[in-house]
Amino acid sequence: MSIITIVGAGMMGSAMSRPATDNGHRVRLVGTPLDRAIIDSIRTSGYHPTLRRQMPESVEACQVEELDRALEGADLVIGGVSSFGVEWFADHVLPKLRMNVPVLSITKGLNGGGDGELIPFPHHLESRLPPEKRGRIPFCAVGGPCISFELADRRHTMVVFCGSDGRAVSKVRRMLTTGYYHVSESTDVAGVEGCAALKNAYAMGVSLAVGIADREVGELDSESAKALCSPGAPDRNPVYNPQAALFAQSCLEMSRIVRLLGGDETLAGVLPGAGDLFVTIFGGRTRRLGSLLGRGIPFPEAREMLHNVTLEAVAIIRCVSRALRLRAERGEVRLSDFPLLFHMEAVLEGGAPPEPPYALFGETGKSACPAE
Amino acid sequence: MSIITIVGAGMMGSAMSRPATDNGHRVRLVGTPLDRAIIDSIRTSGYHPTLRRQMPESVEACQVEELDRALEGADLVIGGVSSFGVEWFADHVLPKLRMNVPVLSITKGLNGGGDGELIPFPHHLESRLPPEKRGRIPFCAVGGPCISFELADRRHTMVVFCGSDGRAVSKVRRMLTTGYYHVSESTDVAGVEGCAALKNAYAMGVSLAVGIADREVGELDSESAKALCSPGAPDRNPVYNPQAALFAQSCLEMSRIVRLLGGDETLAGVLPGAGDLFVTIFGGRTRRLGSLLGRGIPFPEAREMLHNVTLEAVAIIRCVSRALRLRAERGEVRLSDFPLLFHMEAVLEGGAPPEPPYALFGETGKSACPAE
Repeated sequence: MSIITIVGAGMMGSAMSRPATDNGHRVRLVGTPLDRAIIDSIRTSGYHPTLRRQMPESVEACQVEELDRALEGADLVIGGVSSFGVEWFADHVLPKLRMNVPVLSITKGLNGGGDGELIPFPHHLESRLPPEKRGRIPFCAVGGPCISFELADRRHTMVVFCGSDGRAVSKVRRMLTTGYYHVSESTDVAGVEGCAALKNAYAMGVSLAVGIADREVGELDSESAKALCSPGAPDRNPVYNPQAALFAQSCLEMSRIVRLLGGDETLAGVLPGAGDLFVTIFGGRTRRLGSLLGRGIPFPEAREMLHNVTLEAVAIIRCVSRALRLRAERGEVRLSDFPLLFHMEAVLEGGAPPEPPYALFGETGKSACPAE
Repeated sequence: MSIITIVGAGMMGSAMSRPATDNGHRVRLVGTPLDRAIIDSIRTSGYHPTLRRQMPESVEACQVEELDRALEGADLVIGGVSSFGVEWFADHVLPKLRMNVPVLSITKGLNGGGDGELIPFPHHLESRLPPEKRGRIPFCAVGGPCISFELADRRHTMVVFCGSDGRAVSKVRRMLTTGYYHVSESTDVAGVEGCAALKNAYAMGVSLAVGIADREVGELDSESAKALCSPGAPDRNPVYNPQAALFAQSCLEMSRIVRLLGGDETLAGVLPGAGDLFVTIFGGRTRRLGSLLGRGIPFPEAREMLHNVTLEAVAIIRCVSRALRLRAERGEVRLSDFPLLFHMEAVLEGGAPPEPPYALFGETGKSACPAE
């Protein structure tokens, strides 16, 4: 039995307490300043209001003021903030970490450097460590398809833990693998985390086709649109060839970006890429945003309809398209290799019509070439 | 304007008349002996009873007795039979083909040889040509996600035409590409057609999870089960982590089989593999079969509930697992690299419980390794 401290009490961070407690670990769940109401609720009744589930009874819920105490003696720290909380985590949690205690970050994203670099969060976090701790705290991260509700319900879930330190990855995997949480290992941080970040962007791209088809059968108010994009909802206008074309183009462009990041591009076609993209298009904010844009609703209006929630897809599209443009200026990439990415950017930023540029899509390489 | 003769008046063969006529070609649609009622209906009213659409007016529908006349002067012959009609096509159509007139086969499948070989249909058909015609009739084939109804409705559809003769592939692509039918090219017949065949098998695998989840919310009679597996139907029990795990494992195993066939394994992660698998799991016979098996219904009973329709998934699972076993005996492959395939075989042939062996799944190779 070990002590696992989860920092960030959002849905995914909190759901990680399920395999952790099932394996007999002592779990401390620490809220960020934004999670105050969640922690209060868990303390009062055990109920997690956004995960909409009772938490495992043994979980000790802590407010952010209790962070120091919660980190004491921890054998593993899970970074459970969203991508918008990653700097808070770097500022407030990293300095408190003990040497040699591994960190498992479930935050998915890429950090854009000024020179077109795209840095996976585990590497970014490592660079934010105080100098004396660098290289002495092993960072791991998660990729692969995992809806937090389903993990909390002990549904079969298959993910990849990655990190530069293979032994730390193995150790963390052994702590958290259960009969339903199936974990494989990788040392390819750029590959796994590149896919984990990019799939949010591309899930929006695939969802454009959902909105385009849906619009044909009549307009919707925003509440109906929200209901229709819930997991399991019927498709009002079931049309799948365009979605499948966008899905495949997404995998292709993800593989090209992963290669630029220095990762193994084939990961884009298996669990971290295609697998995670598959799960992401079945519901949630990203699908709702893509569907609204596909219906021809301009982004500022769509964002309002989504109550201005933070949209990771938008952040990733902006960050990656900016980086690719910088690299293209230096002649390192061809922007024409990413027609779907730049189409999504044009829809978001320029109010371009949602119809994707299918004629520009296609395979390249040794075995297939673009249509024109 | 050219003359295009389509042999086989099933749904996909008939749907190909849409891009063909839109490009101004003269189309002759010839039924097989099994298509007599379809051809009668088209002649009488223009209505295709299984495609459930009016055919383009200019299509000339012919019964099988008119085959010779229909092939006269054809610039392209489209082989539109199902995989169960491929020997009929070889026996009755191949001998009548003229030299240098390309054939585009939309039949998806693999032919198992006695020694563990798996031969894509275009290669199999080439081998069935009369000796004097071998090498003188260019065979092309189609891969990628295409639901026939949607092609008939001019939905954006992205496919790959492949063939050993790159110039013939380009020619056929130019004849059929339209503003909605987006065609790229490949000379990797084993890669493209391997994926095209395998995706039927693996779509059944992914659908097991649909049935397993669905069973939790109560039993269904076969008619309700059929309705629920129709495209666009709501998911009674929306659970996606297991489906996504199976989807990713499918892509991984497809890539391994494609490599054994001598094809480019990365095709399994883009349009011919992941893209086509995506579309296939959204509805139709394969999903229905997988869902019924997932509910714990034994295969003989499930087959009856599906009115004993021909099931391409079953044929492919049998053919590929037999071939891999033969190769494993010779030490050429490890059966443990294909846990999902052999699980599907065990469910079909041995009545094994449907729960997939998730713990055996996982990435291998340079960047990720299995959980155990």
